[in-house]
Amino acid sequence: MEIRVVRNVLEKNKKLADTVRERLHGRCTTMFNFMSSPGSGKTTLFQRLVPALLERGLRIGIIEGDVTTAIDAERLNHLGVPISLINTEKFGGTCHLAANVVLGALETLDDTPLDMILIENVGNLICPGEYDTGADGSVVLLSVTEGEDKPLKYPAIFRKTEASIISKIDVAGVLECNVSLLRENILRANPAHVIFEASGKTGAGVTELADWLVQRHQTSLASRSGAAR
Amino acid sequence: MEIRVVRNVLEKNKKLADTVRERLHGRCTTMFNFMSSPGSGKTTLFQRLVPALLERGLRIGIIEGDVTTAIDAERLNHLGVPISLINTEKFGGTCHLAANVVLGALETLDDTPLDMILIENVGNLICPGEYDTGADGSVVLLSVTEGEDKPLKYPAIFRKTEASIISKIDVAGVLECNVSLLRENILRANPAHVIFEASGKTGAGVTELADWLVQRHQTSLASRSGAAR
Repeated sequence: MEIRVVRNVLEKNKKLADTVRERLHGRCTTMFNFMSSPGSGKTTLFQRLVPALLERGLRIGIIEGDVTTAIDAERLNHLGVPISLINTEKFGGTCHLAANVVLGALETLDDTPLDMILIENVGNLICPGEYDTGADGSVVLLSVTEGEDKPLKYPAIFRKTEASIISKIDVAGVLECNVSLLRENILRANPAHVIFEASGKTGAGVTELADWLVQRHQTSLASRSGAAR
Repeated sequence: MEIRVVRNVLEKNKKLADTVRERLHGRCTTMFNFMSSPGSGKTTLFQRLVPALLERGLRIGIIEGDVTTAIDAERLNHLGVPISLINTEKFGGTCHLAANVVLGALETLDDTPLDMILIENVGNLICPGEYDTGADGSVVLLSVTEGEDKPLKYPAIFRKTEASIISKIDVAGVLECNVSLLRENILRANPAHVIFEASGKTGAGVTELADWLVQRHQTSLASRSGAAR
Protein backbone atom coordinates (compact mmCIF):
# COMPACT_ATOMS: atom_id res chain seq x y z
CA MET A 1 0.00 0.00 0.00
CA GLU A 2 2.74 2.39 1.08
CA ILE A 3 4.88 1.06 -1.77
CA ARG A 4 2.08 1.80 -4.25
CA VAL A 5 1.90 5.40 -3.00
CA VAL A 6 5.65 5.75 -3.53
CA ARG A 7 5.34 4.34 -7.05
CA ASN A 8 2.63 6.88 -7.96
CA VAL A 9 4.76 9.68 -6.55
CA LEU A 10 7.75 8.52 -8.63
CA GLU A 11 5.64 8.27 -11.80
CA LYS A 12 4.28 11.79 -11.33
CA ASN A 13 7.82 12.98 -10.62
CA LYS A 14 9.08 11.41 -13.87
CA LYS A 15 6.52 13.41 -15.88
CA LEU A 16 7.59 16.64 -14.21
CA ALA A 17 11.24 15.73 -14.83
CA ASP A 18 10.36 15.48 -18.55
CA THR A 19 8.96 19.02 -18.32
CA VAL A 20 12.23 20.15 -16.71
CA ARG A 21 14.15 18.52 -19.58
CA GLU A 22 12.00 20.29 -22.18
CA ARG A 23 12.66 23.67 -20.56
CA LEU A 24 16.40 23.05 -20.42
CA HIS A 25 16.45 21.87 -24.05
CA GLY A 26 14.69 25.04 -25.10
CA ARG A 27 17.48 27.10 -23.54
CA CYS A 28 20.53 25.00 -24.54
CA THR A 29 21.27 24.61 -20.85
CA THR A 30 22.59 21.38 -19.33
CA MET A 31 22.08 20.38 -15.71
CA PHE A 32 24.09 18.09 -13.44
CA ASN A 33 22.85 16.74 -10.12
CA PHE A 34 25.37 16.29 -7.27
CA MET A 35 24.29 13.98 -4.44
CA SER A 36 25.94 12.69 -1.26
CA SER A 37 25.59 12.14 2.48
CA PRO A 38 25.59 15.24 4.68
CA GLY A 39 29.10 16.58 5.11
CA SER A 40 30.73 14.86 2.14
CA GLY A 41 32.02 18.18 0.90
CA LYS A 42 29.65 19.17 -1.91
CA THR A 43 29.62 22.88 -1.05
CA THR A 44 33.40 23.08 -0.52
CA LEU A 45 33.92 21.32 -3.86
CA PHE A 46 31.52 23.75 -5.61
CA GLN A 47 33.63 26.64 -4.29
CA ARG A 48 36.49 25.27 -6.44
CA LEU A 49 34.52 23.72 -9.28
CA VAL A 50 32.41 26.74 -10.23
CA PRO A 51 35.42 29.06 -10.82
CA ALA A 52 37.04 26.26 -12.87
CA LEU A 53 33.90 26.01 -15.04
CA LEU A 54 33.67 29.81 -15.39
CA GLU A 55 37.31 29.84 -16.56
CA ARG A 56 36.30 27.34 -19.24
CA GLY A 57 33.78 29.86 -20.59
CA LEU A 58 30.58 28.36 -19.20
CA ARG A 59 27.87 30.50 -17.62
CA ILE A 60 26.96 28.64 -14.45
CA GLY A 61 23.91 28.64 -12.18
CA ILE A 62 23.35 26.70 -8.97
CA ILE A 63 20.26 25.06 -7.49
CA GLU A 64 20.97 24.65 -3.81
CA GLY A 65 18.83 22.10 -1.95
CA ASP A 66 18.59 22.01 1.82
CA VAL A 67 15.93 20.99 4.32
CA THR A 68 16.35 24.32 6.08
CA THR A 69 18.75 27.33 6.33
CA ALA A 70 20.65 29.28 3.66
CA ILE A 71 24.06 28.23 5.05
CA ASP A 72 25.30 26.51 1.88
CA ALA A 73 23.86 29.15 -0.47
CA GLU A 74 25.61 31.86 1.57
CA ARG A 75 28.90 29.95 1.36
CA LEU A 76 28.57 30.02 -2.44
CA ASN A 77 27.36 33.60 -2.74
CA HIS A 78 30.82 35.09 -3.34
CA LEU A 79 31.13 33.08 -6.56
CA GLY A 80 28.91 35.70 -8.22
CA VAL A 81 26.73 33.18 -10.06
CA PRO A 82 22.92 32.97 -9.76
CA ILE A 83 21.81 30.63 -6.99
CA SER A 84 18.30 29.36 -6.46
CA LEU A 85 17.89 28.13 -2.90
CA ILE A 86 15.27 25.47 -2.20
CA ASN A 87 14.39 24.76 1.43
CA THR A 88 12.43 21.50 1.31
CA GLU A 89 10.79 22.27 4.67
CA LYS A 90 8.30 24.23 2.56
CA PHE A 91 7.51 20.99 0.71
CA GLY A 92 6.93 18.76 3.73
CA GLY A 93 10.61 18.64 4.69
CA THR A 94 11.44 16.14 1.97
CA CYS A 95 14.85 14.50 2.12
CA HIS A 96 15.51 14.94 -1.61
CA LEU A 97 14.83 17.34 -4.48
CA ALA A 98 11.88 16.24 -6.59
CA ALA A 99 11.29 17.53 -10.14
CA ASN A 100 8.49 19.89 -9.07
CA VAL A 101 10.79 21.91 -6.82
CA VAL A 102 13.56 21.89 -9.45
CA LEU A 103 11.02 23.26 -11.93
CA GLY A 104 10.22 26.09 -9.50
CA ALA A 105 13.93 26.77 -9.03
CA LEU A 106 14.46 26.97 -12.81
CA GLU A 107 11.87 29.75 -12.96
CA THR A 108 13.85 31.85 -10.50
CA LEU A 109 16.90 31.40 -12.77
CA ASP A 110 14.99 32.56 -15.86
CA ASP A 111 16.52 36.04 -16.00
CA THR A 112 20.06 34.93 -16.81
CA PRO A 113 21.17 32.89 -19.81
CA LEU A 114 23.06 29.87 -18.44
CA ASP A 115 25.08 27.11 -20.07
CA MET A 116 25.11 24.75 -17.11
CA ILE A 117 23.19 24.40 -13.86
CA LEU A 118 24.70 22.46 -10.97
CA ILE A 119 22.28 21.00 -8.44
CA GLU A 120 23.55 20.53 -4.89
CA ASN A 121 20.98 18.03 -3.67
CA VAL A 122 19.87 17.55 -0.05
CA GLY A 123 22.47 15.60 1.97
CA ASN A 124 21.20 12.02 1.81
CA LEU A 125 22.63 8.90 0.18
CA ILE A 126 19.29 7.13 -0.31
CA CYS A 127 16.21 9.00 -1.61
CA PRO A 128 17.77 11.66 -3.88
CA GLY A 129 18.87 8.79 -6.16
CA GLU A 130 15.23 7.71 -6.59
CA TYR A 131 13.98 11.06 -7.87
CA ASP A 132 14.62 12.08 -11.47
CA THR A 133 15.33 15.82 -11.34
CA GLY A 134 15.44 16.24 -15.12
CA ALA A 135 19.24 16.63 -15.02
CA ASP A 136 21.42 15.53 -17.94
CA GLY A 137 23.68 13.64 -15.60
CA SER A 138 24.08 12.74 -11.94
CA VAL A 139 27.14 12.39 -9.78
CA VAL A 140 27.61 10.98 -6.30
CA LEU A 141 30.21 12.28 -3.84
CA LEU A 142 31.61 9.99 -1.17
CA SER A 143 34.17 11.27 1.27
CA VAL A 144 37.13 9.14 2.38
CA THR A 145 35.85 9.54 5.95
CA GLU A 146 32.68 7.52 5.29
CA GLY A 147 34.19 4.05 4.96
CA GLU A 148 35.01 1.87 1.97
CA ASP A 149 31.80 -0.20 2.26
CA LYS A 150 29.33 2.57 1.42
CA PRO A 151 28.93 1.78 -2.33
CA LEU A 152 27.89 -1.76 -1.32
CA LYS A 153 25.51 -0.57 1.41
CA TYR A 154 23.91 2.18 -0.70
CA PRO A 155 24.16 0.68 -4.21
CA ALA A 156 21.02 2.26 -5.70
CA ILE A 157 22.47 5.77 -5.88
CA PHE A 158 25.60 4.41 -7.58
CA ARG A 159 23.47 2.54 -10.12
CA LYS A 160 21.53 5.70 -10.97
CA THR A 161 24.55 7.98 -11.40
CA GLU A 162 27.37 8.01 -13.93
CA ALA A 163 30.31 9.26 -11.90
CA SER A 164 31.68 9.15 -8.36
CA ILE A 165 33.81 11.78 -6.71
CA ILE A 166 35.90 10.41 -3.86
CA SER A 167 36.09 13.62 -1.85
CA LYS A 168 38.39 14.87 0.95
CA ILE A 169 41.13 12.85 -0.77
CA ASP A 170 43.71 14.97 1.08
CA VAL A 171 42.89 13.21 4.37
CA ALA A 172 42.68 9.66 2.96
CA GLY A 173 45.99 8.74 4.63
CA VAL A 174 45.13 10.08 8.08
CA LEU A 175 41.67 8.48 7.96
CA GLU A 176 43.28 5.20 6.86
CA CYS A 177 40.92 4.98 3.90
CA ASN A 178 41.78 2.20 1.49
CA VAL A 179 41.10 4.18 -1.70
CA SER A 180 41.75 1.16 -3.99
CA LEU A 181 39.12 -0.84 -2.11
CA LEU A 182 36.70 2.09 -2.25
CA ARG A 183 37.22 2.33 -6.03
CA GLU A 184 36.67 -1.43 -6.35
CA ASN A 185 33.43 -1.21 -4.36
CA ILE A 186 32.19 1.70 -6.49
CA LEU A 187 32.81 -0.40 -9.62
CA ARG A 188 31.07 -3.39 -8.00
CA ALA A 189 28.00 -1.19 -7.52
CA ASN A 190 28.31 0.25 -11.04
CA PRO A 191 31.04 -1.03 -13.39
CA ALA A 192 30.49 1.92 -15.76
CA HIS A 193 31.23 4.65 -13.17
CA VAL A 194 33.79 7.32 -13.97
CA ILE A 195 35.72 7.92 -10.72
CA PHE A 196 37.38 11.16 -9.63
CA GLU A 197 39.50 11.73 -6.56
CA ALA A 198 39.12 15.30 -5.38
CA SER A 199 39.53 17.71 -2.51
CA GLY A 200 37.59 20.93 -2.18
CA LYS A 201 40.18 22.02 0.36
CA THR A 202 43.34 21.55 -1.72
CA GLY A 203 41.74 21.72 -5.17
CA ALA A 204 43.05 18.27 -6.12
CA GLY A 205 41.07 16.67 -8.95
CA VAL A 206 39.07 19.82 -9.75
CA THR A 207 40.70 20.30 -13.18
CA GLU A 208 39.82 16.73 -14.23
CA LEU A 209 36.26 17.08 -12.95
CA ALA A 210 35.73 20.45 -14.67
CA ASP A 211 37.11 19.07 -17.96
CA TRP A 212 34.81 16.06 -17.71
CA LEU A 213 31.78 18.28 -17.04
CA VAL A 214 32.59 20.46 -20.07
CA GLN A 215 32.79 17.31 -22.18
CA ARG A 216 29.51 15.97 -20.74
CA HIS A 217 27.93 19.38 -21.44
CA GLN A 218 28.97 19.10 -25.08
CA THR A 219 27.84 15.50 -25.52
CA SER A 220 24.47 16.34 -23.92
CA LEU A 221 23.91 19.25 -26.29
CA ALA A 222 24.99 17.11 -29.25
CA SER A 223 22.63 14.27 -28.30
CA ARG A 224 19.75 16.74 -28.06
CA SER A 225 20.33 18.14 -31.53
CA GLY A 226 20.69 14.54 -32.72
CA ALA A 227 17.34 13.69 -31.16
CA ALA A 228 15.74 16.74 -32.77
CA ARG A 229 16.80 15.72 -36.26
CA MET B 1 -1.69 15.93 -1.02
CA GLU B 2 1.74 14.29 -0.68
CA ILE B 3 2.07 15.89 2.77
CA ARG B 4 -1.28 14.40 3.84
CA VAL B 5 -0.08 10.91 2.80
CA VAL B 6 3.05 11.40 4.92
CA ARG B 7 0.93 12.52 7.89
CA ASN B 8 -1.23 9.38 7.66
CA VAL B 9 1.86 7.19 7.45
CA LEU B 10 3.32 8.88 10.56
CA GLU B 11 0.04 8.47 12.50
CA LYS B 12 -0.13 4.77 11.67
CA ASN B 13 3.53 4.45 12.61
CA LYS B 14 2.88 6.08 15.99
CA LYS B 15 0.23 3.46 16.81
CA LEU B 16 2.63 0.63 15.92
CA ALA B 17 5.34 2.31 18.01
CA ASP B 18 2.91 2.16 20.96
CA THR B 19 2.59 -1.59 20.33
CA VAL B 20 6.40 -1.86 20.34
CA ARG B 21 6.47 0.01 23.67
CA GLU B 22 3.88 -2.35 25.18
CA ARG B 23 5.92 -5.39 24.17
CA LEU B 24 9.11 -3.92 25.62
CA HIS B 25 7.32 -2.95 28.84
CA GLY B 26 6.05 -6.50 29.25
CA ARG B 27 9.62 -7.78 29.11
CA CYS B 28 11.40 -5.11 31.22
CA THR B 29 13.53 -4.37 28.17
CA THR B 30 14.60 -0.86 27.21
CA MET B 31 15.48 0.20 23.67
CA PHE B 32 17.70 3.01 22.37
CA ASN B 33 17.74 4.21 18.79
CA PHE B 34 21.06 5.38 17.28
CA MET B 35 20.80 7.52 14.16
CA SER B 36 23.32 9.32 11.94
CA SER B 37 24.50 9.98 8.40
CA PRO B 38 26.14 7.08 6.57
CA GLY B 39 29.70 6.57 7.75
CA SER B 40 29.47 8.48 11.04
CA GLY B 41 30.85 5.47 12.89
CA LYS B 42 27.77 3.82 14.45
CA THR B 43 28.96 0.25 13.85
CA THR B 44 32.52 0.94 15.01
CA LEU B 45 31.15 2.60 18.15
CA PHE B 46 28.85 -0.40 18.81
CA GLN B 47 31.92 -2.66 18.68
CA ARG B 48 33.18 -0.80 21.78
CA LEU B 49 29.89 0.11 23.42
CA VAL B 50 28.32 -3.35 23.50
CA PRO B 51 31.21 -4.95 25.46
CA ALA B 52 31.12 -1.98 27.88
CA LEU B 53 27.39 -2.56 28.47
CA LEU B 54 27.88 -6.32 28.87
CA GLU B 55 30.57 -5.60 31.49
CA ARG B 56 27.97 -3.53 33.35
CA GLY B 57 25.77 -6.62 33.59
CA LEU B 58 23.24 -5.81 30.88
CA ARG B 59 22.04 -8.43 28.42
CA ILE B 60 22.19 -6.65 25.06
CA GLY B 61 20.48 -7.23 21.71
CA ILE B 62 20.92 -5.29 18.48
CA ILE B 63 18.50 -4.32 15.72
CA GLU B 64 20.59 -3.56 12.68
CA GLY B 65 18.95 -1.47 9.97
CA ASP B 66 20.34 -1.25 6.46
CA VAL B 67 18.87 -0.70 3.03
CA THR B 68 20.73 -3.75 1.79
CA THR B 69 23.61 -6.13 2.73
CA ALA B 70 24.58 -7.74 6.05
CA ILE B 71 27.92 -5.88 6.22
CA ASP B 72 27.26 -4.10 9.54
CA ALA B 73 25.58 -7.12 11.17
CA GLU B 74 28.61 -9.24 10.21
CA ARG B 75 30.96 -6.65 11.71
CA LEU B 76 29.06 -7.00 15.02
CA ASN B 77 28.68 -10.77 14.93
CA HIS B 78 31.80 -11.45 17.04
CA LEU B 79 30.21 -9.61 19.99
CA GLY B 80 28.15 -12.75 20.64
CA VAL B 81 24.88 -10.88 21.24
CA PRO B 82 21.65 -11.53 19.33
CA ILE B 83 21.33 -9.36 16.23
CA SER B 84 18.20 -8.89 14.18
CA LEU B 85 19.08 -7.60 10.73
CA ILE B 86 16.50 -5.57 8.84
CA ASN B 87 17.12 -4.88 5.15
CA THR B 88 14.63 -2.18 4.26
CA GLU B 89 14.82 -3.10 0.55
CA LYS B 90 12.16 -5.68 1.49
CA PHE B 91 9.96 -2.81 2.66
CA GLY B 92 10.21 -0.62 -0.42
CA GLY B 93 13.84 0.38 0.28
CA THR B 94 12.80 2.86 2.95
CA CYS B 95 15.49 5.24 4.19
CA HIS B 96 14.57 4.75 7.88
CA LEU B 97 13.29 2.11 10.29
CA ALA B 98 9.55 2.40 10.87
CA ALA B 99 7.81 0.84 13.88
CA ASN B 100 6.35 -2.04 11.84
CA VAL B 101 9.78 -3.38 10.89
CA VAL B 102 11.07 -2.87 14.45
CA LEU B 103 8.09 -4.91 15.67
CA GLY B 104 9.08 -7.70 13.29
CA ALA B 105 12.68 -7.50 14.48
CA LEU B 106 11.57 -7.78 18.13
CA GLU B 107 9.87 -11.08 17.29
CA THR B 108 13.13 -12.53 16.03
CA LEU B 109 14.73 -11.54 19.37
CA ASP B 110 11.98 -13.24 21.38
CA ASP B 111 14.04 -16.29 22.34
CA THR B 112 16.54 -14.45 24.53
CA PRO B 113 15.76 -12.36 27.62
CA LEU B 114 17.31 -8.95 27.05
CA ASP B 115 17.77 -5.88 29.24
CA MET B 116 18.52 -3.44 26.47
CA ILE B 117 18.17 -3.36 22.70
CA LEU B 118 20.29 -0.97 20.64
CA ILE B 119 18.94 0.03 17.25
CA GLU B 120 21.44 0.96 14.58
CA ASN B 121 19.15 2.86 12.24
CA VAL B 122 19.64 3.29 8.49
CA GLY B 123 22.33 5.88 7.68
CA ASN B 124 20.35 9.06 7.10
CA LEU B 125 20.20 12.34 9.01
CA ILE B 126 16.66 13.26 7.93
CA CYS B 127 13.84 10.69 7.86
CA PRO B 128 14.83 8.33 10.74
CA GLY B 129 14.16 11.25 13.11
CA GLU B 130 10.55 11.47 11.87
CA TYR B 131 9.65 7.86 12.66
CA ASP B 132 8.91 6.82 16.25
CA THR B 133 10.43 3.33 16.62
CA GLY B 134 8.99 2.75 20.10
CA ALA B 135 12.43 3.23 21.65
CA ASP B 136 12.86 4.65 25.17
CA GLY B 137 15.42 7.12 23.93
CA SER B 138 17.12 8.28 20.76
CA VAL B 139 20.63 9.42 20.11
CA VAL B 140 22.24 11.10 17.10
CA LEU B 141 25.86 10.56 16.07
CA LEU B 142 27.70 13.24 14.16
CA SER B 143 31.28 12.70 13.12
CA VAL B 144 33.85 15.50 13.27
CA THR B 145 34.36 15.00 9.53
CA GLU B 146 30.86 16.22 8.67
CA GLY B 147 31.25 19.93 9.43
CA GLU B 148 30.18 22.08 12.37
CA ASP B 149 27.04 23.38 10.62
CA LYS B 150 25.14 20.08 10.44
CA PRO B 151 22.99 20.56 13.61
CA LEU B 152 21.73 23.82 12.07
CA LYS B 153 21.10 22.27 8.67
CA TYR B 154 19.39 19.12 10.02
CA PRO B 155 17.77 20.45 13.21
CA ALA B 156 14.75 18.11 13.28
CA ILE B 157 16.73 15.02 14.25
CA PHE B 158 18.43 16.97 17.07
CA ARG B 159 15.05 18.17 18.34
CA LYS B 160 13.69 14.62 18.42
CA THR B 161 16.67 13.05 20.23
CA GLU B 162 18.07 13.53 23.72
CA ALA B 163 21.79 13.08 23.23
CA SER B 164 24.48 13.69 20.61
CA ILE B 165 27.65 11.70 20.17
CA ILE B 166 30.39 13.66 18.44
CA SER B 167 32.15 10.70 16.86
CA LYS B 168 35.64 10.15 15.41
CA ILE B 169 36.83 12.66 18.02
CA ASP B 170 40.38 11.26 17.59
CA VAL B 171 40.66 12.96 14.18
CA ALA B 172 39.07 16.29 15.17
CA GLY B 173 42.47 18.03 15.06
CA VAL B 174 43.51 16.71 11.65
CA LEU B 175 40.07 17.46 10.20
CA GLU B 176 40.27 20.98 11.70
CA CYS B 177 36.86 20.48 13.33
CA ASN B 178 35.96 23.27 15.73
CA VAL B 179 34.43 21.01 18.41
CA SER B 180 33.34 23.98 20.60
CA LEU B 181 31.40 25.42 17.67
CA LEU B 182 29.89 22.02 16.92
CA ARG B 183 28.77 21.70 20.56
CA GLU B 184 27.30 25.22 20.41
CA ASN B 185 25.38 24.38 17.24
CA ILE B 186 24.02 21.15 18.77
CA LEU B 187 22.75 23.18 21.73
CA ARG B 188 21.26 25.78 19.39
CA ALA B 189 19.26 22.97 17.75
CA ASN B 190 18.34 21.45 21.14
CA PRO B 191 19.46 23.17 24.35
CA ALA B 192 18.62 20.05 26.40
CA HIS B 193 21.00 17.73 24.54
CA VAL B 194 23.51 15.66 26.49
CA ILE B 195 26.71 15.67 24.42
CA PHE B 196 29.38 12.95 24.32
CA GLU B 197 32.69 13.05 22.48
CA ALA B 198 33.66 9.56 21.45
CA SER B 199 35.81 7.46 19.16
CA GLY B 200 34.99 3.90 18.21
CA LYS B 201 38.59 3.58 17.08
CA THR B 202 40.36 4.63 20.30
CA GLY B 203 37.52 3.91 22.73
CA ALA B 204 37.47 7.51 23.97
CA GLY B 205 34.15 8.47 25.59
CA VAL B 206 32.76 4.92 25.59
CA THR B 207 32.82 4.65 29.43
CA GLU B 208 30.79 7.85 29.81
CA LEU B 209 28.32 6.77 27.14
CA ALA B 210 27.87 3.29 28.63
CA ASP B 211 27.35 4.77 32.12
CA TRP B 212 24.77 7.18 30.75
CA LEU B 213 22.91 4.37 28.95
CA VAL B 214 22.81 2.28 32.16
CA GLN B 215 21.36 5.28 33.97
CA ARG B 216 18.81 5.89 31.20
CA HIS B 217 17.91 2.20 31.32
CA GLN B 218 17.19 2.50 35.04
CA THR B 219 15.18 5.73 34.76
CA SER B 220 13.13 4.24 31.90
CA LEU B 221 12.27 1.16 33.95
CA ALA B 222 11.46 3.33 36.99
CA SER B 223 9.16 5.60 34.98
CA ARG B 224 7.31 2.55 33.64
CA SER B 225 6.63 1.14 37.11
CA GLY B 226 5.60 4.66 38.18
CA ALA B 227 3.18 4.84 35.28
CA ALA B 228 1.74 1.42 36.18
CA ARG B 229 0.96 2.43 39.75
